[in-house]
Amino acid sequence: MIELAVFGAGRIGHVHALNAAAHPSVRLKYIVDPVPSEAHERLAAETGADMVDTEMVFSDADISGVVIASSTDTHAELLLRAAESGKAVFCEKPVSLDFATVARVSRVVEEAGIACLLGFQRRYDPNFRFVRDRIVSGQAGALEHIVMHTRDPSPPPRAYVERSGGMFRDQAIHDFDMARYLLGEEIATVYAAGNSLIDPEIAAAGDIDTAMITLTSVSGRFVQMINCRRAPFGYDQRLEALCSREVLYVENRPQRGVMIADAEGFHSSTPMNYFIERFADAYRAEMHAFVDMIETGAKPLAGIRDGLEAQRIAEAAIVSMKTGTAVHITPDWNP
Amino acid sequence: MIELAVFGAGRIGHVHALNAAAHPSVRLKYIVDPVPSEAHERLAAETGADMVDTEMVFSDADISGVVIASSTDTHAELLLRAAESGKAVFCEKPVSLDFATVARVSRVVEEAGIACLLGFQRRYDPNFRFVRDRIVSGQAGALEHIVMHTRDPSPPPRAYVERSGGMFRDQAIHDFDMARYLLGEEIATVYAAGNSLIDPEIAAAGDIDTAMITLTSVSGRFVQMINCRRAPFGYDQRLEALCSREVLYVENRPQRGVMIADAEGFHSSTPMNYFIERFADAYRAEMHAFVDMIETGAKPLAGIRDGLEAQRIAEAAIVSMKTGTAVHITPDWNP
Amino acid sequence: MIELAVFGAGRIGHVHALNAAAHPSVRLKYIVDPVPSEAHERLAAETGADMVDTEMVFSDADISGVVIASSTDTHAELLLRAAESGKAVFCEKPVSLDFATVARVSRVVEEAGIACLLGFQRRYDPNFRFVRDRIVSGQAGALEHIVMHTRDPSPPPRAYVERSGGMFRDQAIHDFDMARYLLGEEIATVYAAGNSLIDPEIAAAGDIDTAMITLTSVSGRFVQMINCRRAPFGYDQRLEALCSREVLYVENRPQRGVMIADAEGFHSSTPMNYFIERFADAYRAEMHAFVDMIETGAKPLAGIRDGLEAQRIAEAAIVSMKTGTAVHITPDWNP
Amino acid sequence: MIELAVFGAGRIGHVHALNAAAHPSVRLKYIVDPVPSEAHERLAAETGADMVDTEMVFSDADISGVVIASSTDTHAELLLRAAESGKAVFCEKPVSLDFATVARVSRVVEEAGIACLLGFQRRYDPNFRFVRDRIVSGQAGALEHIVMHTRDPSPPPRAYVERSGGMFRDQAIHDFDMARYLLGEEIATVYAAGNSLIDPEIAAAGDIDTAMITLTSVSGRFVQMINCRRAPFGYDQRLEALCSREVLYVENRPQRGVMIADAEGFHSSTPMNYFIERFADAYRAEMHAFVDMIETGAKPLAGIRDGLEAQRIAEAAIVSMKTGTAVHITPDWNP
Repeated sequence: MIELAVFGAGRIGHVHALNAAAHPSVRLKYIVDPVPSEAHERLAAETGADMVDTEMVFSDADISGVVIASSTDTHAELLLRAAESGKAVFCEKPVSLDFATVARVSRVVEEAGIACLLGFQRRYDPNFRFVRDRIVSGQAGALEHIVMHTRDPSPPPRAYVERSGGMFRDQAIHDFDMARYLLGEEIATVYAAGNSLIDPEIAAAGDIDTAMITLTSVSGRFVQMINCRRAPFGYDQRLEALCSREVLYVENRPQRGVMIADAEGFHSSTPMNYFIERFADAYRAEMHAFVDMIETGAKPLAGIRDGLEAQRIAEAAIVSMKTGTAVHITPDWNP
Repeated sequence: MIELAVFGAGRIGHVHALNAAAHPSVRLKYIVDPVPSEAHERLAAETGADMVDTEMVFSDADISGVVIASSTDTHAELLLRAAESGKAVFCEKPVSLDFATVARVSRVVEEAGIACLLGFQRRYDPNFRFVRDRIVSGQAGALEHIVMHTRDPSPPPRAYVERSGGMFRDQAIHDFDMARYLLGEEIATVYAAGNSLIDPEIAAAGDIDTAMITLTSVSGRFVQMINCRRAPFGYDQRLEALCSREVLYVENRPQRGVMIADAEGFHSSTPMNYFIERFADAYRAEMHAFVDMIETGAKPLAGIRDGLEAQRIAEAAIVSMKTGTAVHITPDWNP
Repeated sequence: MIELAVFGAGRIGHVHALNAAAHPSVRLKYIVDPVPSEAHERLAAETGADMVDTEMVFSDADISGVVIASSTDTHAELLLRAAESGKAVFCEKPVSLDFATVARVSRVVEEAGIACLLGFQRRYDPNFRFVRDRIVSGQAGALEHIVMHTRDPSPPPRAYVERSGGMFRDQAIHDFDMARYLLGEEIATVYAAGNSLIDPEIAAAGDIDTAMITLTSVSGRFVQMINCRRAPFGYDQRLEALCSREVLYVENRPQRGVMIADAEGFHSSTPMNYFIERFADAYRAEMHAFVDMIETGAKPLAGIRDGLEAQRIAEAAIVSMKTGTAVHITPDWNP
Repeated sequence: MIELAVFGAGRIGHVHALNAAAHPSVRLKYIVDPVPSEAHERLAAETGADMVDTEMVFSDADISGVVIASSTDTHAELLLRAAESGKAVFCEKPVSLDFATVARVSRVVEEAGIACLLGFQRRYDPNFRFVRDRIVSGQAGALEHIVMHTRDPSPPPRAYVERSGGMFRDQAIHDFDMARYLLGEEIATVYAAGNSLIDPEIAAAGDIDTAMITLTSVSGRFVQMINCRRAPFGYDQRLEALCSREVLYVENRPQRGVMIADAEGFHSSTPMNYFIERFADAYRAEMHAFVDMIETGAKPLAGIRDGLEAQRIAEAAIVSMKTGTAVHITPDWNP
């Protein structure tokens, strides 16, 4: 039995705690969350874990891995503790809102040589993986360009926006990662235009709610991105990969399997809403991959370096939006 | 130039007159309709035809073909006139509501040896033909059973129902024909259940508005039919052919190419409504086939014998519904 | 904690054992299966259950409910034991292949007053329930007829066919149940035609692989059924309910969320295959309902009487197929 | 009867000549094409037009309108002749590959006050019009951003590319126009990235085959464009308008109404291919609109000024691609 601890018992920590507890080779020993709450107690009871503090986790030599799903401002420190104590780590993105910190922590983690899986869960989604596999296998032909739609169901509350690092670091970063993952190479140029068209609260928080982004890869291939904090019908998360022989479309998945027809036409349901539901399989697969890393030394689909590179693109996008010009990214570019 | 005459300037006669006039090798010389109306005058003007009486048509030796799209009670007589005068004929179904008359006229027409195309337009529809061709070519594998949906947008007026010969002879007859066409063999058994569930006017007229029919072919294959005088969304005309390697689905065709998404879900348009619109291509193809028959002696996809056999099934369905038993059809079965 | 036992550790028993064990208020105490196997041992280990014999289950007063998922020929006896010992029962259909036995056991179970859920899992599927709810609420208008497609991915092995009771009792019985469930009334007439068109092994076993069935309800509404032991693309399980204001379609659910486009067209994946996968949610919901029955006295969506009535229709269908006539069912009809 | 002349009997001239001839109030009197060919003769015969030279058209006072569908390098001169002779004009885009010429000719045409319809046929397509109407009516809510896909079935021949003015002026210009049409305001900023990823012949001709473009409107709304000279499945022409209450999708239209299912999944047909087929209705509607302009003084959906503004965006896109920066467009911006 592998013993794990989960930091953070909020929305995504809850998912990871349940997945860890349900894994046949895992004992979820600890949950750490500084805010006492009934929901956290229930989660602990359900998963058989003890609610403890951070020190307890790192002083327990039986804990072989930690899941970092606490608030963003704690990620860097916990990663460093994990590196120091030699524990495997599964960390939610981003490592930090401060790029220099991300770079520094990434270096430390890499030098420590600990197993580290970064929470770009979309890489573990069976449909996105299908697309990746079909491209890598050569079956689809040469990948030429990608179109990605990411629209949230509705704007987040202002308090969230203010702590989020902004739309590029918070939302589009998943798309930047997917772009690198599918292209299999780095991004050379970013152009980003953004505006607050939907929610004045977002503008008041100094952020945008709509962004149009163009990435050019080192070899000259393209990614055209549409990012938005709202879609009238709910969560919109699609991808279209144009290859020389095939176009591959990751589609939204309907919530309901019933079509209704009436005098107005044919009506199908809204898509799965929201990422917790849409990517439930991906989160489970991530936990399995993390356990494999500990048990067999397997490599993750996304590691600490992928977090750094995706964030580099996010930083460049912010600069592009401010300057109105495409930003050229070199391997050591930083904001 | 082939010179044609059209009998009947109502809904379907209008379609045939326009298609004849638009055919590059046809001169539409005459339209015959006993009821004077402005619409008929306009049609004559638009097609360059003269409005004349029946005698004029049959006494004009330059007329090589006639299109019979007048009221059902005139079909038999006009077919006999055509047979007598040796003119090619394109006749809307049914030949007559009286089966003995259909049988008799079919014999005369066949003996006269005139070219005769019977208006089962669905055989000329490109999608139904695609299905037929794919079965005949062997690509789909062996055809095992067929499911057919025919639902009208809304019940016809009582006056129409009273003269229609009833739902089996008027509506389901197209499906009986399609069954024979796709199976490539005769029907051996018919079971039909029917009821008036939708419109009390139809019950008052002594007819049904909903029918469930099962056909068994001579070799033991099946056709499951759903026939109805209403679909809430409009015209429902679909087919599903289960073959050993493939299932082939003829689908409804949407009117609009715009999908709308909102908080309720995804909304596509109602289908093409009604047969005049849905089968516009088929009617055009029928006219071309008729001209080919005259010019080159080509065979029609549906001839007078197909009308007889489809009607035989309709007659058997009526008996089945009344008796509650499956009716066995032999080649000389009659009601 | 409610303590349960599961009889049978085969395909469906496996599903029920896992669902029982995963239920927060359940302790799965026992699994009973006369055939020793490694897979059964693993299942016991995974669920924390002991492998015991039948006597142990019924002599343990702490067991409040039993799940009967063993071979069909054991169902009746186990139901009688459950009735005798006052334990709640969740029984897979059919109660017995012998109709008189079904009737007798149903009477005993009803007289014993034990809670009894019969495994028509489709009633617990969220999509079929959506259709039922929308009809019951009046939103869809009056239900007029139903079309049901049930096609298995491929013919079962001959040995299975021989013990199955035949296609009507084994496969179509789920559709007979769904028909009663949605119509909210009994069936008055059954017509069934069947043949072996696909697999000569099935004919050799004295069964059919293709059936076309028409049900007429007491009030004269219709159900048109298409049943088959094969669909080229896998599991085909669809329903279409024509109501006066809406048509409700339960559709197949695709396995994959990726569409592929190439020079041939657009390609989407085969549907979920097979019932274990397609109805995973339904099986979970069934187990929750069974626990609710024990905890709160809630009524099941399908009880022992529903098994009896569905089987009555199956028996009548067999008679209809043999005689070629529609069979009229009265409340006390039996084969 | 309105008498018209068509310049150019190539692919699109052929369409316009047939549509003019089929219009009930039009007599197509002349076709002008400097290249003698059998196909042109056949077209003249079919439409009843005479093949004449340019002088004949402009010296015939009975000609009230001309359709300019000849090669691009003749458009400007013919527009000036039409302006001079006071004839209504229906001109295919672009007016000229040279922006200064476009500006000059536009001014002359406007000052002459002749009726002028510019061939942005997509404005006349029923589906794109549906989207426009639904936005204008307020039903969809506020338009926030648009995504447009334009992919040709396959790269044009090198000779075409060399005379085309490049991908922005030749292909994307239709999208620039649609952007302005739907937004109802001018474009303020253009960013364009392009590359030749598909066909080395296109690179050799100095052009690109893939372009990613971002438009920002004067009020700060966005258009994200994907343009390509190839799609593996044929012609890809889609639009997605995100509004505050609805998303409106103009979809590709399938060629075939038959779905095929087999062991690999469900297969639908390639879309209508190519613009002549996909926009057949739009071309017919354009001709009707042109006749209305002559008969009633109605305004076109797209006039000479729309051609100028769309081309201004194309010119700015070329500058953007070369400089790698977004280009700001003012009302008098020119390349």
